[in-house]
Amino acid sequence: MGVHRRSASSYAFDGVVIRSAAAVVGPKEGEGPLGSYFDRIWPSELNNHSSFEVAERALLVEAQNLTLQKGEQDWFNVDVVMGGDLLDQLISTNFAAREHQRPLLGLFSACAVFTEGLGLGALAIAGQGPKTVLVGASSHHMAAERQFRYPIELGYQRTPTAGWTATAAGSCLLSGSSSVDSGDIVIEAATFGRVVDWGSKNPNDMGTAMAPAAFDTIKRHLEDFNRDISDYDQIYTGDLGVLGVKLLDALASKEGFDWSHRLNDCGRSLYDIERQDVHNGGSGAGCSASVFSGFLYHQLQHGQFHRILLVSTGALFSPTSYQQGESIPSIAHAVAISRAD
Amino acid sequence: MGVHRRSASSYAFDGVVIRSAAAVVGPKEGEGPLGSYFDRIWPSELNNHSSFEVAERALLVEAQNLTLQKGEQDWFNVDVVMGGDLLDQLISTNFAAREHQRPLLGLFSACAVFTEGLGLGALAIAGQGPKTVLVGASSHHMAAERQFRYPIELGYQRTPTAGWTATAAGSCLLSGSSSVDSGDIVIEAATFGRVVDWGSKNPNDMGTAMAPAAFDTIKRHLEDFNRDISDYDQIYTGDLGVLGVKLLDALASKEGFDWSHRLNDCGRSLYDIERQDVHNGGSGAGCSASVFSGFLYHQLQHGQFHRILLVSTGALFSPTSYQQGESIPSIAHAVAISRAD
Repeated sequence: MGVHRRSASSYAFDGVVIRSAAAVVGPKEGEGPLGSYFDRIWPSELNNHSSFEVAERALLVEAQNLTLQKGEQDWFNVDVVMGGDLLDQLISTNFAAREHQRPLLGLFSACAVFTEGLGLGALAIAGQGPKTVLVGASSHHMAAERQFRYPIELGYQRTPTAGWTATAAGSCLLSGSSSVDSGDIVIEAATFGRVVDWGSKNPNDMGTAMAPAAFDTIKRHLEDFNRDISDYDQIYTGDLGVLGVKLLDALASKEGFDWSHRLNDCGRSLYDIERQDVHNGGSGAGCSASVFSGFLYHQLQHGQFHRILLVSTGALFSPTSYQQGESIPSIAHAVAISRAD
Repeated sequence: MGVHRRSASSYAFDGVVIRSAAAVVGPKEGEGPLGSYFDRIWPSELNNHSSFEVAERALLVEAQNLTLQKGEQDWFNVDVVMGGDLLDQLISTNFAAREHQRPLLGLFSACAVFTEGLGLGALAIAGQGPKTVLVGASSHHMAAERQFRYPIELGYQRTPTAGWTATAAGSCLLSGSSSVDSGDIVIEAATFGRVVDWGSKNPNDMGTAMAPAAFDTIKRHLEDFNRDISDYDQIYTGDLGVLGVKLLDALASKEGFDWSHRLNDCGRSLYDIERQDVHNGGSGAGCSASVFSGFLYHQLQHGQFHRILLVSTGALFSPTSYQQGESIPSIAHAVAISRAD
């Protein structure tokens, strides 16, 4: 195991393996094109819980427990839990931690938190700190809508550029390994993002706000590791959605890069955009967490992908900052994940 | 440099030095007993900023800039920025990061975030990741009051157990060092906390909610490093306040430990409790950050203390969780800091 610093932003890791992964989603996500890849699909948004907030933390706890089951590990084998969510004061992550009683490191970078956790967890393990880190992230459509926008009961009309916060949680168990076996899913490297703010102020268009942050991080990643976009089967951004991916592609083109055939997005993949009426696509901290932990991890395991770059994207505004007329600072953290030969 | 895992919770570090530290506070904090130790005291809570939220992020930026000035470093020398605050979606930390454009890892553990950052920053550096990490935390009395309780203009009466959220920011520059010199301030070890919830539901009495978490972390720390309370000149909890420290002492006594002469608290130290009418004492993410970065760092540098344990404490509730009848989960992260002989 070991860490290799490539720049202030970029670190390569030896011997960090994703031992297991699990995703639990709501009914709408289950009806989407990736439905068959999720470990559990809830029959309703509440699933008999007393509130949407309680439901969100239950989603996370289910995903964490399933991850451990699939990895044949007990909570006792988890050194540290890392992760975050969108709710004020991180109540999903923090209240979920009452159940497991393991050391907790709460993170926040809005919908970019899943790759913040994967990168930081890998850094900690490769640096010979914790032996295992359980990384998770969650979001819930109804809880996010009433915190950030309007209660769902209001039935207001959504703008075409609006994202659909996913009801979903994803979780991965990271562990250190002195020898990596063929078929192991490995976290090769992370590039941590910086805050990028091009002045966008529309909270119903996060794709536009976040695309420059994704571009900044991907470009930096490729430079720091001296790689080309073709070294990755796919780049999966977190929740840029239909519009955001187009903007990212345009930003790349403008600087002379042809990324068009390699770009994909967890939020765009999670739903059948037209049929499910989700406008710009899925968003939320649980979006990239569940798409990776359900679908992408499976594709890597089964050799459909050899190496991907997962780039969760976060819009770092709050209702207060919006009301005060501020623009929307954004961030993207990238993690390179591959299947060992 | 290196990391030594003592348990899932506890890690010892070689070669991590706090190169410089700075604290910027509001007028009330400046009038308190530690006023002379702070780098800058604002003449008013707003200090000509357009809102209390904008003021809070300005406090943090000032503390970060002063830390770099004192350490004779440029922003360019900062590999990674870590930290957090209390405002929804971490807007102080995130908006402050628009200024510096360095890689950002946002953290959240309420008022425990400063030691979460010191511990995680030290772990990352000792593990040969980033060479330098700038750790900061902030809070603002007026911004916190209107987010968590009532607008200050309402003039409501405070309960005797209520804390006083500090208007303060503190920041430390951590760097790796192959050889530690005499007089260097060293991060020896960290013990990361788990969530402890004894069922307390009173948001105007955080000391009672958080004391069990502080006890759990301190006890675990001493066990993991095979140390006795007398190995530390002082244990400084974050913001247990007058009542919380008494409870912590009582919890220790009940298990047969006499900690009474070693316990102190940043929130209790920050104000003249009676004269300044702050009831239980100071609280907020900026409380332990400023008391450490202003006062305690100075005391270590000047040999008044040889080794301390800083244990920032966090109450992980939100207004929503409170309204839903939930109890208050708490956490405490401990960092052992000493002056090299």
